[in-house]
Amino acid sequence: MSKLYPKELQELIEELKRLPGVGEKTAERYALSLLEEDNEAIQTFVHALVASKQKIHPCSVCGNYSNQERCEICRDESRDHQIFCVVNDVKDLIAIEKAETYHGVYHVLGGLLSAQKGIMPQDIRIEELMKRVDQGAQEVILALNATVEGEMTAMYITKKLEDKVKVTRLAFGLPIGGHLDYADDMTLIKAFEGRK
Amino acid sequence: MSKLYPKELQELIEELKRLPGVGEKTAERYALSLLEEDNEAIQTFVHALVASKQKIHPCSVCGNYSNQERCEICRDESRDHQIFCVVNDVKDLIAIEKAETYHGVYHVLGGLLSAQKGIMPQDIRIEELMKRVDQGAQEVILALNATVEGEMTAMYITKKLEDKVKVTRLAFGLPIGGHLDYADDMTLIKAFEGRK
Repeated sequence: MSKLYPKELQELIEELKRLPGVGEKTAERYALSLLEEDNEAIQTFVHALVASKQKIHPCSVCGNYSNQERCEICRDESRDHQIFCVVNDVKDLIAIEKAETYHGVYHVLGGLLSAQKGIMPQDIRIEELMKRVDQGAQEVILALNATVEGEMTAMYITKKLEDKVKVTRLAFGLPIGGHLDYADDMTLIKAFEGRK
Repeated sequence: MSKLYPKELQELIEELKRLPGVGEKTAERYALSLLEEDNEAIQTFVHALVASKQKIHPCSVCGNYSNQERCEICRDESRDHQIFCVVNDVKDLIAIEKAETYHGVYHVLGGLLSAQKGIMPQDIRIEELMKRVDQGAQEVILALNATVEGEMTAMYITKKLEDKVKVTRLAFGLPIGGHLDYADDMTLIKAFEGRK
């Protein structure tokens, strides 16, 4: 069973394991299914992948993905360019955009401060945030994970900015539809603190 | 929210949805993670995909995937080339190989008879199986899904072959580690019938 697959197929399986959360079994399924596709479909797939890598870059202003120098959101004049929502990565930005509740602009940090991983302020886009704030800002909303690293980053940025601009954080509390008895202690404590 | 992603990225997400069981959310995760990879990694990935498509073909004898005319299993002289295990597809072949219990060779049908999908005997590799049996066979083991289509295919092949060669089927019964109260009626009926 050491050589279940021909070499090329085994290599494809290994490559597919790069995808997040994909282990041996899922990679095998994906590889076998790709082999079943016709050549044209595979070419389209490869083309889409290569085009993404070549054309998509971080927006020069906010760090969101874009195929132009400035991203769609930064170019959108109907949005409020005086309110910055600070997020860890593009995934978080997308999650917020999907909720269709926020109409300011973003600032993607590209990481969170972490003593453990050795991520320091200069490793993430904090300096760029300071510069943007200096150019005029009404509010900075910190939309960071409710983790140790998210807290640390939020505290650091708050300290840096609180004299210059209003800094707020997303509310903590029970998730909508969540059952109280499934909520962890910290969430409950925050939910009580934030009660209105 | 209609244009969450730049065009190229949206296309990549659509392409990733080809993978089995991958919906919008997973495709987004995969696409964003691929964008984070460096160019070299993406090139390796593309190369593995293209090489697989170019070099991997069905084995001319059994239909297993191979980078040569005959697959590793068909070339293996230590296996019993008089016993054929008939499977639906390469996934099933791999599942059996992983169990390391079978040492004959295979015959991949490439589908199961289906009235609903209009899959007829000439659409799958039954004729090829007949020819192989005519060239000498001791036993044909039908390792087909325990579904209506698997049953239909097994019955059809049995009828075609039973005068020429011993035809057997995998035993049905409780899965090892399975709880009796979770087994469906048909499995229990088969388990009773097959009791020893």
